Amino acid sequence: MPAYCIQKKYPEQYCHCYGCGMSNPDGLGIRSYWDGQKAVARFTPDARHIAVPGYVYGGLIASLVDCHGIATAAAAAGQARSGGDDPDLLDRYVTASLQVNFLKPTPLGTELEIWGEVISMDKGKLLVDVTVKALGQTTVSGQVLAAPMPENMA
Amino acid sequence: MPAYCIQKKYPEQYCHCYGCGMSNPDGLGIRSYWDGQKAVARFTPDARHIAVPGYVYGGLIASLVDCHGIATAAAAAGQARSGGDDPDLLDRYVTASLQVNFLKPTPLGTELEIWGEVISMDKGKLLVDVTVKALGQTTVSGQVLAAPMPENMA
Repeated sequence: MPAYCIQKKYPEQYCHCYGCGMSNPDGLGIRSYWDGQKAVARFTPDARHIAVPGYVYGGLIASLVDCHGIATAAAAAGQARSGGDDPDLLDRYVTASLQVNFLKPTPLGTELEIWGEVISMDKGKLLVDVTVKALGQTTVSGQVLAAPMPENMA
Repeated sequence: MPAYCIQKKYPEQYCHCYGCGMSNPDGLGIRSYWDGQKAVARFTPDARHIAVPGYVYGGLIASLVDCHGIATAAAAAGQARSGGDDPDLLDRYVTASLQVNFLKPTPLGTELEIWGEVISMDKGKLLVDVTVKALGQTTVSGQVLAAPMPENMA
């Protein structure tokens, strides 16, 4: 199954996210690609996204884990709902909780590879494992608990 | 004891943080104030920091929890080291792990109040509870495990 860009399948009215929304020209522009099992995103932080000289800001990494984890959940849920096909439109999920473990400093000035995989689905909520790699090394692990967008946000 | 701005006491060579560095003109400009027991920051997200219409982006909230948690740890550690006085300069801490619980959607267009309090210190690491309030309601709780900056980042 060919990979597709998950954020392109979010409903138009929920495409404003600062991290990954197709309709937010001032945002980070995170794009996640779904291959039927896992999702991957590639992102190169720019110079302003610094923690201390030489290393990436943790809040940016938390943003990558967050948006990519939610995207992974949306794609996996869509595939489960459609019985295996790629749906045209994905339901929007929100973050119930976010855990980020900074295993080692993440170097600035190189492309990061972010992987997401759903490890459980229960009562509509999906738990997603996320890892961030730089120069072939895993520098960050994280988990995102994704929940369907509540009615009071719609 | 009068409140002081924690980020102003970070060493000059570690003042570049995108979230809260005094030397990062392109950053978020988070400022944390220490009153001797707790730290508070006030921050108004701007229009681009959107999740879905009307609500704040979770990655920005994670950034607030991260920087403010680390600031709280630095101030508490500095005070403990000095025997109660406000030190002129604070040691820099980094995030070992970050947990963010999104209890309810955080409304966009209003000032947020972020509180931080150290709940334990063990072997140089500090665990900090952080809460985010909007319009008087707690919308987010979080924890930051802060560790002294490792030598390989200095």
